[in-house]
Amino acid sequence: MDTHRLRLGDRSYPIYVGIDIAENAGRLLKNRGVTAPPILVSEYRIMRLHGQRLLQALEREFGSVPVIRIKAGESSKSQSGLQKLYDRLFRLGADRTSCLLAFGGGVITDLTGFAAATFMRGIRYASIPTTLLAQVDSSIGGKVGINVLQGKNLIGAFHHPIAVLSDVSWLDTLDDRELASGIYEVIKCGAIKSQRLLRRIDEDLQDLLDRRCGALQTIVSWACRIKADVVAADEREQEFRMILNFGHTIGHALEAATGYRRFTHGEAVAWGMLAALSLGTELNLLAPLKARRLENLIRRVGSLPTLRGIETGEVWASLLRDKKIRGGKIRMVFLSRLGRAEVHPDIDAKHLKSFLGRFLLSSS
Amino acid sequence: MDTHRLRLGDRSYPIYVGIDIAENAGRLLKNRGVTAPPILVSEYRIMRLHGQRLLQALEREFGSVPVIRIKAGESSKSQSGLQKLYDRLFRLGADRTSCLLAFGGGVITDLTGFAAATFMRGIRYASIPTTLLAQVDSSIGGKVGINVLQGKNLIGAFHHPIAVLSDVSWLDTLDDRELASGIYEVIKCGAIKSQRLLRRIDEDLQDLLDRRCGALQTIVSWACRIKADVVAADEREQEFRMILNFGHTIGHALEAATGYRRFTHGEAVAWGMLAALSLGTELNLLAPLKARRLENLIRRVGSLPTLRGIETGEVWASLLRDKKIRGGKIRMVFLSRLGRAEVHPDIDAKHLKSFLGRFLLSSS
Repeated sequence: MDTHRLRLGDRSYPIYVGIDIAENAGRLLKNRGVTAPPILVSEYRIMRLHGQRLLQALEREFGSVPVIRIKAGESSKSQSGLQKLYDRLFRLGADRTSCLLAFGGGVITDLTGFAAATFMRGIRYASIPTTLLAQVDSSIGGKVGINVLQGKNLIGAFHHPIAVLSDVSWLDTLDDRELASGIYEVIKCGAIKSQRLLRRIDEDLQDLLDRRCGALQTIVSWACRIKADVVAADEREQEFRMILNFGHTIGHALEAATGYRRFTHGEAVAWGMLAALSLGTELNLLAPLKARRLENLIRRVGSLPTLRGIETGEVWASLLRDKKIRGGKIRMVFLSRLGRAEVHPDIDAKHLKSFLGRFLLSSS
Repeated sequence: MDTHRLRLGDRSYPIYVGIDIAENAGRLLKNRGVTAPPILVSEYRIMRLHGQRLLQALEREFGSVPVIRIKAGESSKSQSGLQKLYDRLFRLGADRTSCLLAFGGGVITDLTGFAAATFMRGIRYASIPTTLLAQVDSSIGGKVGINVLQGKNLIGAFHHPIAVLSDVSWLDTLDDRELASGIYEVIKCGAIKSQRLLRRIDEDLQDLLDRRCGALQTIVSWACRIKADVVAADEREQEFRMILNFGHTIGHALEAATGYRRFTHGEAVAWGMLAALSLGTELNLLAPLKARRLENLIRRVGSLPTLRGIETGEVWASLLRDKKIRGGKIRMVFLSRLGRAEVHPDIDAKHLKSFLGRFLLSSS
């Protein structure tokens, strides 16, 4: 079991990564000061696949553990989903001393974390992410929230868990797109912070795609350490934390322009990275050979859904709605080399728009 | 103008109290780093009574200032009220850099503060309280939230404003009960922290009831200083901050048992203080003569709605629902002398129940 620490003063917390986390969950939570039975929040499917092993471990330490099962999918990460979760918590008699366990993918960790942030002015929760994307990204950093009609994650809070428990043996049941989606986020971590991680992904790619636990544990651990260090240095995304958004500016816009239906989040980020690499070389920020190397790695993970039919105007409208463009300038993250990212606050919006048109055309 | 500071490290903020705060609001906010026009959130009635003076001052500094008007009353401090406020903010194009101004009583400051805590994971807000109760209590300390079916303030957060602007000249339009309600909370501040404040209220009571600005400014200022110091010492109510709950344990239960219709919050707290004084002398925690002195002061403020017809069982059920009783013991705040409060974690619940029966009988 690897243990990393997200250092945030008296709100610091451990991130456990391994193949035996489920079995040890009760003990790990007890070590974090959970004494009464926590409340498990999960999805029907996750509970069916992985619930028993976790529940047994929890009940060994705590006795009977109440479970709240939620419908899978983004539609639960909404005002009405939140209200339902509150209601369930009240019915279970949850109070200020309760601790929630968010057991599932990003929808569950975001929703449960936000419920914990606001229930009785904030109670404790732990993240027990079951997807690669959640293990390396959404469960770490305290960003929690829900979607509203106006957009994704627009209502939320910064509320850190007391611990993150990532068992990589759960990743075995991910489908190919979910797995690839997580690998793209790990590639992003390497791209902005560690060329060595990129090299490791490159070497181990087949083992990763085969869901070999050893290879998965290595990259999950590595990505967690990178993300934890970046978040510790800039908890509320004043500036430095923005490097985590490499590939996300255009990625988010692609997701929004296609109604969140064509791409998984990771796939959109993969396209966003490809675009940022291409624009970065065009702007002479990154050597073309290096860009090409990373491009090749991204392409090798799997085949990305096509960009065909996406209008430049729609992507552009999403960027505008996102308020990312101010005074004709847009803030974007570029690589200066593999393993090093820089925030550029003043990319010319007109140039970006013309680039987008060319990129969409050449990539579809 | 008096300026106090709530000291919370890099989230410290000033509390301004005076008779010329409205005129200076724009400048004060600019000093706190607000550069773009803030968004004013208020009630129809407040805007009619006091809006013009404030808006003029704001528009002098910021140009046109958007106003969101909300229906008066507790029903706005709800999930649906919150959703409406979010929608208005989106329609106005609010973003991460926006600053809200909560201009009104406790409903407005609690609701707006919670919207600010959760809109795009937290934006800035300033409190501009217009009632005595909000000026001395609800606007200070960062407790924000909404009511749900299951109870009051059960969904919320700790989110501090960037400044509190309290103009005592607005208190002129309070009705007698609202005014008295605030005075009870000021008496509570004196009771737990300053005998000198109690003496001042005693001497100035007629001036206060006549809404004389000088007398009001003195006690608002004094109460703000006391509350700010208590909150700074224990932001998240781990222990010490609980002394602010003097009179609130039984007060809350009385409010809940009467469906929040018979008493204003301050009136319920006044009854709660009378009960705590009586029980405190019964338990030999406070000398009867001292209790009598504070009782007399509370009685002189105005006539409290009767306790007639309130069943002990209902009050008791509210206490139970509040989770305040654990293992047959209840945590309550008592005075050891005037100006000094202590938290007693182990008051015998049976004794409290029998006391409640006698108190309700003797007071109705």
